[in-house]
Amino acid sequence: MGAVAGPEIERLVQLLARLPGLGPRSARRAALHLIKKREALMMPLSGALQVALDKVQVCKTCGNIDTQNPCTICTDPKRDPAIIVVVADVADLWALERANATQGRYHVLGATLSPLDGVGPQDLSIDALVARAHAAEVHEIILALNATVDGQTTAHYITDLLQDANVKVTRLAHGVPVGGELDYLDEGTLSAAMRQRTLF
Amino acid sequence: MGAVAGPEIERLVQLLARLPGLGPRSARRAALHLIKKREALMMPLSGALQVALDKVQVCKTCGNIDTQNPCTICTDPKRDPAIIVVVADVADLWALERANATQGRYHVLGATLSPLDGVGPQDLSIDALVARAHAAEVHEIILALNATVDGQTTAHYITDLLQDANVKVTRLAHGVPVGGELDYLDEGTLSAAMRQRTLF
Repeated sequence: MGAVAGPEIERLVQLLARLPGLGPRSARRAALHLIKKREALMMPLSGALQVALDKVQVCKTCGNIDTQNPCTICTDPKRDPAIIVVVADVADLWALERANATQGRYHVLGATLSPLDGVGPQDLSIDALVARAHAAEVHEIILALNATVDGQTTAHYITDLLQDANVKVTRLAHGVPVGGELDYLDEGTLSAAMRQRTLF
Repeated sequence: MGAVAGPEIERLVQLLARLPGLGPRSARRAALHLIKKREALMMPLSGALQVALDKVQVCKTCGNIDTQNPCTICTDPKRDPAIIVVVADVADLWALERANATQGRYHVLGATLSPLDGVGPQDLSIDALVARAHAAEVHEIILALNATVDGQTTAHYITDLLQDANVKVTRLAHGVPVGGELDYLDEGTLSAAMRQRTLF
């Protein structure tokens, strides 16, 4: 195909194929779609990428991604400075914001501990979290980490580090997903939901 | 999320979500991936889009997409000018080129006839195909169209128009896909493969 469509299109396809969710074949379709929708899509996308390149940065306080630094959440006076919600990734922060799940602020670790993949504490933004947890205004650290082995390992590690800090350390509840059917749930979730049952 | 990540990121997500293969959720992941891989991916992709915007154009002869006009295939002296392979879309042309399926040149219709969707002959590059088919050097028109109702309707329509032209009109064989298992094939394909069986 390189000889057919020219190296410029081939390069576009290769770069698109590196986006999560796009494989080599769907990247070709995406490139073709862009070329066909030149005015309606390719030009705006090119512009949006340029703007993002110019403006987007990592918040030096919490690790969120934003066009201002410190980010909108860290500087929002309506967000509760007493609560820090710890997430592994900005994607998790976005998910919690979409759910409107907290009025607290965030701390993005950047990853979870994964000894098998060579990800250790030094690869995570843990020192900065411990420093923030010692601030007088902070009363609660909510560990909103994946309910996976790596996520829970990270949660335990951080809990240990925070024992000296004068904060309450909490984690997300386990239970039946809203809209979920009991028949399809694993035993671990079901027994956790039973143990942590609430008054109706 | 708009208020969290800023309108610039939200705009990038919305544009990425319009690529085929990416939905709203995967577009967010893709945007985040781009932002994280700023140097390694976002900058090159921005550049590749700019190059494509500057250079890519539609071949005035065959409708292929290329950085030169007429395209590389139309101007390649090693391609056989006696054969024109008719495809609905540039994606089909790319697929045939990847398969190294023909030494002929191409004609891209741009779509297939689809009365239900309001796609009529005037929406396809059919007049130009008929004109090309009347050139003295052209001996065969290969209709490489989808084996769908719309594709076959289009094939019949074009065949009728080409009756005055001094060309052989052919179409792709039906049969068992290479690597395919008979057990999983539909009856239409199986009976076509039986009818069009070849000597071993």
